[in-house]
Amino acid sequence: MNQPFPLTQIRVVLIETSHPGNLGAVARAMKVMGLSDLRLVNPKCSMDDEARARASGAVDVLETAQICHSLDEALAGTVLAAACTSRRRDLPHPDYTPRQAAPELLRLALTAPVAVVFGSETYGLSNEQLMKCRWLLNIPANPDYASLNLGAAVQVVAYELRSTLADEPLPLPEFQPAPHEAVEGVLVDLEQTLKQIGFLDPAHPKRLMPRLRRFFAKAALEKEEVAIWRGIFAAARKHC
Amino acid sequence: MNQPFPLTQIRVVLIETSHPGNLGAVARAMKVMGLSDLRLVNPKCSMDDEARARASGAVDVLETAQICHSLDEALAGTVLAAACTSRRRDLPHPDYTPRQAAPELLRLALTAPVAVVFGSETYGLSNEQLMKCRWLLNIPANPDYASLNLGAAVQVVAYELRSTLADEPLPLPEFQPAPHEAVEGVLVDLEQTLKQIGFLDPAHPKRLMPRLRRFFAKAALEKEEVAIWRGIFAAARKHC
Repeated sequence: MNQPFPLTQIRVVLIETSHPGNLGAVARAMKVMGLSDLRLVNPKCSMDDEARARASGAVDVLETAQICHSLDEALAGTVLAAACTSRRRDLPHPDYTPRQAAPELLRLALTAPVAVVFGSETYGLSNEQLMKCRWLLNIPANPDYASLNLGAAVQVVAYELRSTLADEPLPLPEFQPAPHEAVEGVLVDLEQTLKQIGFLDPAHPKRLMPRLRRFFAKAALEKEEVAIWRGIFAAARKHC
Repeated sequence: MNQPFPLTQIRVVLIETSHPGNLGAVARAMKVMGLSDLRLVNPKCSMDDEARARASGAVDVLETAQICHSLDEALAGTVLAAACTSRRRDLPHPDYTPRQAAPELLRLALTAPVAVVFGSETYGLSNEQLMKCRWLLNIPANPDYASLNLGAAVQVVAYELRSTLADEPLPLPEFQPAPHEAVEGVLVDLEQTLKQIGFLDPAHPKRLMPRLRRFFAKAALEKEEVAIWRGIFAAARKHC
């Protein structure tokens, strides 16, 4: 039986995973909830017997996982990336629980892939990696011991997506969201433009780009808007 | 920091667990969500290094787990037991998803312990064990591969309880639910009475007692009603 659309459009991205058992646990957690698209960014372990044992009947998810050399590569084609992390008040991202995020993740996944990103067991996600993601996902947890195992975190998010799918009618989004690489392109272009026009001092960048990222994140850039912004930036640079 | 009440009143009962790693994963899954009361019915493995490694910072939950010799012992004092299992249309139990069940489990746990029961990795729960539980919990899953790992199943249920607690105002129940052993006592008394009065043929019991169990389950027996029923049964037997 095919898995219910749009779960198949939801990508799980693991960054620098170090324990083979966790790879297996993630594959199993995904398959039991109907997810299948796994991307491994620079994994620090191999898919060994422990990974296969923990995957149990989900070895196919492990075997079809794509190995990526960067987070950008893993997010290519996605229209929204949500980073699973503990609460970070220092970041400009919108911050949701899996329950709050699931309806919009599913709604967007009707039109294009979306991603949920999980950091390494030891180091979590770097600020640079978090900045590539538009949302943060916080799993509610015990403040005294909030250390979810990687497989458990994927299980909770995948469960929430499947449960929400069972609950919610999913109206098609009215707009065409821009893919990750288009949004990143706009932000690179913006930063370059700001430098060229002398608004951004590379020696003292301060919080300018994070704040602008947040602006674009809230705006949920649409495909048609990409060309508009690129045109604006090009026009701005023309006078430097 | 103390964990939020009533999560501390929610008991996780594992029956005949065979893999130490699963014991550890369950302890961790519980603690990250603020649960702490673990009961192990006839465990088939020891709490070895693998159990401790998988428990990570939740070794305290493992170490304070109570070993029980029967499910009745593990359920003593609880006012509701919910069995986590795949959908079973052959059973007379009310059947809920964790999301449907969580508000009532939390509401009851304001007054007395409640239990969520998980079967062994290989054999699940027997009909006899299921009959000791008033509800079934079905975790929504991929119909082609619904095999949640034991730790993952506990993680999902514990997450649902914590998330619901964050969402829901919890009005106190208006009644005093009867503890497990009182309900079981009433049912034993009922069965004995039915035999004595010749309504239940021990040679051909058919589905009579399961149906009566369901009746009592739906009714959510209250403390004050126990004495009433016991009185009724005693009175009925007096004339045999």
